[in-house]
Amino acid sequence: MNYLEYLSVWNKLSDEHRHRLQSCCTTKKFRKGEILHNGSNDCTGLFLILSGKLRAYILSSDGREITIYSLFERDICLLSASCIMNSIRFDITIEAEKDTEVIIIPSEVYKSVMQESAPLANYTNEIMASRFTDVMWLIDQIMWQSFDKRLANFLLSEALTEENDTLKITHETIGKHLGSPREVVTRMLKYFQNEGVVKLSRGMIEITDKRKLESLADE
Amino acid sequence: MNYLEYLSVWNKLSDEHRHRLQSCCTTKKFRKGEILHNGSNDCTGLFLILSGKLRAYILSSDGREITIYSLFERDICLLSASCIMNSIRFDITIEAEKDTEVIIIPSEVYKSVMQESAPLANYTNEIMASRFTDVMWLIDQIMWQSFDKRLANFLLSEALTEENDTLKITHETIGKHLGSPREVVTRMLKYFQNEGVVKLSRGMIEITDKRKLESLADE
Repeated sequence: MNYLEYLSVWNKLSDEHRHRLQSCCTTKKFRKGEILHNGSNDCTGLFLILSGKLRAYILSSDGREITIYSLFERDICLLSASCIMNSIRFDITIEAEKDTEVIIIPSEVYKSVMQESAPLANYTNEIMASRFTDVMWLIDQIMWQSFDKRLANFLLSEALTEENDTLKITHETIGKHLGSPREVVTRMLKYFQNEGVVKLSRGMIEITDKRKLESLADE
Repeated sequence: MNYLEYLSVWNKLSDEHRHRLQSCCTTKKFRKGEILHNGSNDCTGLFLILSGKLRAYILSSDGREITIYSLFERDICLLSASCIMNSIRFDITIEAEKDTEVIIIPSEVYKSVMQESAPLANYTNEIMASRFTDVMWLIDQIMWQSFDKRLANFLLSEALTEENDTLKITHETIGKHLGSPREVVTRMLKYFQNEGVVKLSRGMIEITDKRKLESLADE
């Protein structure tokens, strides 16, 4: 199986370009919690996700985190190869949120094909536009949405991707996703518990009234 | 004078592609305060700025604003032609912050050349990466920086682009740039005035101690 066919542009590339991409790819596994990419000095390559989940986040100077987007099976992680574009001047960190297997396409090979191939360059544009859209959504959230709404949205989205209403996640991890201190998360979760929306136990959050949680997210 | 030579990619395009872009461009003037582009349904075209200044901002549902980037002479505004990429799914508004003259390149013409031309597609990637970088800087600011620091940075950047330490700008306008209520801006400016950093008068802010303002911005 040639997993590069996961790239929707694959059939539009020339044989020569396909060969160049294919011949240099490697597969790699990362354990949950491992860092795949760290800041702009580290131009690892593009990751095509075969299984698992990645999280891209930024760090404040004093170590606080906020998730800027998550990536799932068949997604491609472009910003781990930020050196393919001169104008990308920001640092992100990519962490395996679950055990994850990826194909790595080396940056210099991808860049050399992209510079010759209009289809690959346009495909890259679309990937970047998707991530840009994620980040604009995030700005909207942190600027205009209240924290209860953001937390409700986060819990619903986790339940959806995990296909499970009982989430194994700590308050600290949620804080890192949302860019908020753990205490703020705990306080709001306790409020949700008092409202009968969730039930808290050690390392677990059970959604007990999904409809009410959805109405909190929609408010 | 062919202003499309302002595009740094111009000399790398084929004659046919240059001709296609050149033959459909129009020049247009906008008065200070005019809206050039409004949301994603409005796929006006790319703007190449000949003179003046544009501001791109997003709006909350209740009408609050925050500037996401500014564009100056020779800059190109890509997101006013967001329909050239399927994956751009957010709305921005573009306003003339000064009297501004632009060349408009129609979206469909630009898109048709971009799909054939690797140089133009890669150039477009670089423009988008620059705007993406602006937006990542903004997230860093609103997440981790205090308001006094953001305001000090804003005043210094305005003084630099205006080449004048006396700024003709209202507190309300500053609030729209920074995504903050006018009262918050006024309160912080009064604090700056008490510290001897600025002098306030109707519609004007004079920077009286630039070094101190810089130290506030750096803190």
